[in-house]
Amino acid sequence: MKAKSEQGSRERMIEATISLMRESGLSGAGINEIVRESGAPKGSVYHFFPNGKIQITTEAIEVYSQRVLSFIDNALASKGSPSAKVKALFDAFAHRVEEADFRKSCAVGTVSLDLDSGLEDLRIVLEGAFTDWVTQIARHFDFSDTRRTKSFAGLVLTNIEGAYIRCRAERSSRPFREAGVWLAELAEAHT
Amino acid sequence: MKAKSEQGSRERMIEATISLMRESGLSGAGINEIVRESGAPKGSVYHFFPNGKIQITTEAIEVYSQRVLSFIDNALASKGSPSAKVKALFDAFAHRVEEADFRKSCAVGTVSLDLDSGLEDLRIVLEGAFTDWVTQIARHFDFSDTRRTKSFAGLVLTNIEGAYIRCRAERSSRPFREAGVWLAELAEAHT
Repeated sequence: MKAKSEQGSRERMIEATISLMRESGLSGAGINEIVRESGAPKGSVYHFFPNGKIQITTEAIEVYSQRVLSFIDNALASKGSPSAKVKALFDAFAHRVEEADFRKSCAVGTVSLDLDSGLEDLRIVLEGAFTDWVTQIARHFDFSDTRRTKSFAGLVLTNIEGAYIRCRAERSSRPFREAGVWLAELAEAHT
Repeated sequence: MKAKSEQGSRERMIEATISLMRESGLSGAGINEIVRESGAPKGSVYHFFPNGKIQITTEAIEVYSQRVLSFIDNALASKGSPSAKVKALFDAFAHRVEEADFRKSCAVGTVSLDLDSGLEDLRIVLEGAFTDWVTQIARHFDFSDTRRTKSFAGLVLTNIEGAYIRCRAERSSRPFREAGVWLAELAEAHT
């Protein structure tokens, strides 16, 4: 029982960290906020994460990154044309920001904008997440050559991150939907 | 002399706020950090900005927004083709992040990702800045119809904001340069 409950506390702390990072990045995910949001006793943070904030943040980014990979895969799994796939992906993100009432963005994006020179280890984790996402997106497309396919997948990521920012400021999912239409046009022209 | 020195202190505080926001958004631009970065005496913050952090942040965003408008205008002012203009704009941003050693992003973007429901007045200022930038970008292009020109200008903004995020995480200006190439292709196809 104890092991199960401990596991539950640990998971709740990771979930709380992901949620707080999606709201306001690294600065929003302080130990006090994680404790409050997760309902876990404060001492247990250092029990589970002896290296404190950086450790819990890093693990939370890794969990979050895997979840985004599944989300991308599901959205792109349709058997439609390349342009239909692009639109489906951006529509899925549009739904996602609408459901969160435009209050949550991408945890990797928000934390990226809080990086400083003392956070090089964390930066590498963020870069790794982006690389994994681009690789995964590229698997769903087949442009004239591999380099170009990967470049397009990178463009998709750039647009996801940019649309997340605009949706927060504009309280609208239109940036995702418009990016989807334009990028669908490029996908159609190249495949 | 006093008036001039006071004006200087005020400006230094605004500049410090812009610089801190570009590094890590609203959370990075606390009153203590602004005082330290600007070298102004702490009491003078509330002398110049009686409403504290929100007032100085709002004014700093407005100053920053005007500066970005000029930056965009300069980059797009070349008399080249639409695709050459797009490339010139994204190359200009690529230089900008390289010069800052990938440590500074867009102040409107970073603050957008720190918004919460208590910051509605500030959100409107951020949205206004984005609207002004999109309008300014659209002035430099002439697609088949106004709606489409404005939608493309919005896509340009989405890519600028997304590339800023990726450049921080990846310590590379490639996201700007790649977005420039792809969006140049769209500009060429539509004009």
